[in-house]
Amino acid sequence: MHDEDALIRRVVRAVPSQVGGGGSRYGLALGIGDDAALLRSYGGEEWVISCDAFVEGVHFLADIHPADSVGYKALVRAASDLVAMGASPRLFLLTLALPKSRSGRWLDKFLAGLRRAANYLNMRLAGGDTTAGAKVSISVAVLGQIGNNVSHGVPRSAKGRSGHCGTALTRSGGRAGDRIYVSGTLGRAQIGLELVRRMKKRVVRMTMGPLPEALKAHFYPRLRVDLGKWLARNGVASAMMDLSDGLSTDLVRLCHASGVGARLWAERIPVVSPSPEILTLLPRSFDPLKAALNGGDDYELLFTVPKRNDGRLRGAPDSPELTCIGELSNDKQILLADTDGGTKPLTAGGWDPFRK
Amino acid sequence: MHDEDALIRRVVRAVPSQVGGGGSRYGLALGIGDDAALLRSYGGEEWVISCDAFVEGVHFLADIHPADSVGYKALVRAASDLVAMGASPRLFLLTLALPKSRSGRWLDKFLAGLRRAANYLNMRLAGGDTTAGAKVSISVAVLGQIGNNVSHGVPRSAKGRSGHCGTALTRSGGRAGDRIYVSGTLGRAQIGLELVRRMKKRVVRMTMGPLPEALKAHFYPRLRVDLGKWLARNGVASAMMDLSDGLSTDLVRLCHASGVGARLWAERIPVVSPSPEILTLLPRSFDPLKAALNGGDDYELLFTVPKRNDGRLRGAPDSPELTCIGELSNDKQILLADTDGGTKPLTAGGWDPFRK
Repeated sequence: MHDEDALIRRVVRAVPSQVGGGGSRYGLALGIGDDAALLRSYGGEEWVISCDAFVEGVHFLADIHPADSVGYKALVRAASDLVAMGASPRLFLLTLALPKSRSGRWLDKFLAGLRRAANYLNMRLAGGDTTAGAKVSISVAVLGQIGNNVSHGVPRSAKGRSGHCGTALTRSGGRAGDRIYVSGTLGRAQIGLELVRRMKKRVVRMTMGPLPEALKAHFYPRLRVDLGKWLARNGVASAMMDLSDGLSTDLVRLCHASGVGARLWAERIPVVSPSPEILTLLPRSFDPLKAALNGGDDYELLFTVPKRNDGRLRGAPDSPELTCIGELSNDKQILLADTDGGTKPLTAGGWDPFRK
Repeated sequence: MHDEDALIRRVVRAVPSQVGGGGSRYGLALGIGDDAALLRSYGGEEWVISCDAFVEGVHFLADIHPADSVGYKALVRAASDLVAMGASPRLFLLTLALPKSRSGRWLDKFLAGLRRAANYLNMRLAGGDTTAGAKVSISVAVLGQIGNNVSHGVPRSAKGRSGHCGTALTRSGGRAGDRIYVSGTLGRAQIGLELVRRMKKRVVRMTMGPLPEALKAHFYPRLRVDLGKWLARNGVASAMMDLSDGLSTDLVRLCHASGVGARLWAERIPVVSPSPEILTLLPRSFDPLKAALNGGDDYELLFTVPKRNDGRLRGAPDSPELTCIGELSNDKQILLADTDGGTKPLTAGGWDPFRK
């Protein structure tokens, strides 16, 4: 089993937890097990909450990754869980542990990156905690709002008070026969990570000039905010999550939550095609399909669409960048069909912070 | 200036932030600068949100502090900010970075302590993030609810829908002439910290048997949940915060937020009186008044009461444990009057994670 998933189960068994939906005790309409938890007020307003760690030596190397990328990604990674529920990102809380050596210029640049992400996502800092620490260790808690009739917490119309605020898109609504879609091109961030791994300090020099496309996806990922909101608001998708750990790992999670299997078509997966210059910098063994299946950090959306809704996707934001890569199935297997028509089980090979 | 406060100002200047009250854009009725931020739904429901870091080597020593104390305190410290606003603690998100060496028995005990705190405070885990890390690094985001007509997010009566949900108690409502109160005895946790500092590993043996009172306050602090809610609900106090960094530091913050000065009477401050056995274990220089002024981690409540409300305090929970220690004043000075009638300026000497 994925080590992180095993640890989460251990925590949930040990600590009083709200898992999944039902009840709404404590104001929670949905607890642990999806991209984010869902708070529903009795006025019908829905808030989505989540948090994300970003730790030196695990998620980034403070001597190689630009400080402003660290600040930018710390917030964008966390906000991606809100987007994955179809929410509008709104607020964040920042926990920042910082060694003295990082409290000067490094911190200024970190904060500049954080500002850039906050402006890009239209989010505001609402609080936090700062402390000393041996390594840079960041946790960002994020809050987003569901529903398009709510603007900045104020109802646009009397209709807003009726309790109808749209509904978050969870991982668990997928049904056999639904089509599986992804946005964008997968594996782009993995190329950036490979460059960092191989070139180490030389990458720092590359970041001085105009940033190569291959590093942009790894350093400054974009989120599909409008697409996520549109899919939730219009009831087009049946299930959704973000691709943060890699398609092979994340699709298993979506299928597990929905209680279905899946069949992916390898040739349909939108893989990255690195430029010749970048190819020379990558290991010979670099395989675009593997990068697309197992590379993390893309923050694209993975969602499922009942066949009857398929045509409506033409009206979606970023519609030309959406690709159907397979179908959910009734059996519990997750299969990858290759170009010869052969199939093999897809194994979760994505990012796991506990694997070396 | 307090180094942590300076860093917070730097963050707030650099990143789009909601500071203080006003507006309620983004659904926030109150942003940075108080114990917690305040989210207000258009139905009138108020949620209080905050987060707190708890880091190995800064806030605790993983080889000396019992793992279950680390888990317990991680949540209680964070929830204290909710109590300080008069809220009922409800939900938490856990960010946990963990070295491999702590993933066995240590983690089990940590989780047992966390469970104890969650049960004690009637809180539920709603989500989180787990990752590897070189040191144990914890961040806990907490959510609490204001108002006594709301039970677990469900209105008890139609009245609950009218929008009247009580009001959070901030740091900024204190006025000249208001009396300054604290709950409990101050400096208790400081004695525990002194014991840990001096005895190091020998403290571990002390924790095998029945725990001495002096260590309990440091390892397993209690919160004044009912008192905080009562003071907020009944409109008795004008300002409130929790004593987490020490009275001298925290009173300065309350006075600054309220735009007033203060006069404290040294002889009225409820100082701790260690037992003779514990006294022999403390440094000779141990001064109960200094421990009360500058010792952190007590999590007692500091609040101010307009003179006309003074009598009503007799009906408060824990009423016998409340002590009037001074008065807010019109000038901007914060003075400590000693037993001889002499006064001197009080200097913030409490806990600062950036000071060695």
